[in-house]
Amino acid sequence: MHQTYDAALGINLLHANQAGAEHNRAHLDAWGITCLNIMSSPGAGKTALLERTLAALTADFRIAVIEGDMTTELDADRLRQYGVPVIAINTGRSCHLDSRMVSGGLHRLEHEYNPAEFDLLLVENVGNLVCPAEFEVGEHAKVALLSVTEGEDKPLKYPIMFQEADCLLITKMDLAPYLDVDLERIIANVRQMNTTVKIIPVSAKTGEGLEVWLDWVRSVTKPTGVPA
Amino acid sequence: MHQTYDAALGINLLHANQAGAEHNRAHLDAWGITCLNIMSSPGAGKTALLERTLAALTADFRIAVIEGDMTTELDADRLRQYGVPVIAINTGRSCHLDSRMVSGGLHRLEHEYNPAEFDLLLVENVGNLVCPAEFEVGEHAKVALLSVTEGEDKPLKYPIMFQEADCLLITKMDLAPYLDVDLERIIANVRQMNTTVKIIPVSAKTGEGLEVWLDWVRSVTKPTGVPA
Repeated sequence: MHQTYDAALGINLLHANQAGAEHNRAHLDAWGITCLNIMSSPGAGKTALLERTLAALTADFRIAVIEGDMTTELDADRLRQYGVPVIAINTGRSCHLDSRMVSGGLHRLEHEYNPAEFDLLLVENVGNLVCPAEFEVGEHAKVALLSVTEGEDKPLKYPIMFQEADCLLITKMDLAPYLDVDLERIIANVRQMNTTVKIIPVSAKTGEGLEVWLDWVRSVTKPTGVPA
Repeated sequence: MHQTYDAALGINLLHANQAGAEHNRAHLDAWGITCLNIMSSPGAGKTALLERTLAALTADFRIAVIEGDMTTELDADRLRQYGVPVIAINTGRSCHLDSRMVSGGLHRLEHEYNPAEFDLLLVENVGNLVCPAEFEVGEHAKVALLSVTEGEDKPLKYPIMFQEADCLLITKMDLAPYLDVDLERIIANVRQMNTTVKIIPVSAKTGEGLEVWLDWVRSVTKPTGVPA
């Protein structure tokens, strides 16, 4: 449903998306909400990370989630168990969230809640290591996940995601002992693409690295609303 | 670089791609080449599978590879070690191969070799569980890979790939003992999307299931050229 190879048209689509993203961010700024856009391949562990994040942070911050999936509310239902508003966006045939879809989600947040009470909006993007990196949705920071099972070469082969990320989580570290994978090589390949990204190896299963991740989230989130 | 939300334009793009795919397939048919389009998320093991496939089948079939990656020839170089022609296509910012790109690859095959000597063309698509499924390239069958590390719910959440696949490999079976994953549940979820797809659990590491896969490839490939 996409990819025109018309460079001019492609640029215009991205420009239109960017304008929408800036509009979303202006709303979020007015409400005092920090927004993180969380992206990865399918199955790298975005939802598991969000489960651990919600379990740890809902006492300190008012959090909402926008959950992007092509179909189903499976992930949204997992996260609703943490007592936070989860706005599910089904993208249909689209392989990524864009600023128009997230704008619709923000309007739902505004309609059903008082958005000024929230501190943090976690946007879980469609599982895709390519396209979501090009479509800003109004986030203040981009978080990318790369599972150790995906291999060392991915930062070189899918450069845009790694160039764009502000924070990179290397996930499923509990599986590293069973793989022929060199963590230092992954990190070196990420650094080729991005010299400043915060890199955190984690395991949602064992808890490894999660405190470092949670501290990073705390560092970018200012509590402005009323804690739940 | 894509996703218009203009349904009419989207359909036209897919129609144009489909026409190109049929043109490619006519060439392949004239040359007596069976073409498989191999697709998965990043890091599900497409290249490892192709390594094992080339090692096993080059004695019986003349094989060529088209290797799609956003950037780099890392995978192409891995496969060149098996002594087959590997045509690398860098897709740049595009998240999938399309029929126009593969047409360019076929022209290179025609220019540098006698294409009528080949029996099998293996097309390794860009790692992406969403978009490649919508863009036919002229293949005779679609092969999808799903790693056990990606989780049981992926067939439900990324339905198009599983609806379109003729053969589905459940990869990295060697890691299954270390995961909370139920193979029967994965298969049941695939069956919800596709009642006829051939499903083969495999491990490129241990060799589990590879003979079943190789037999499937043999069953769809007719040797028409001169073995190498």
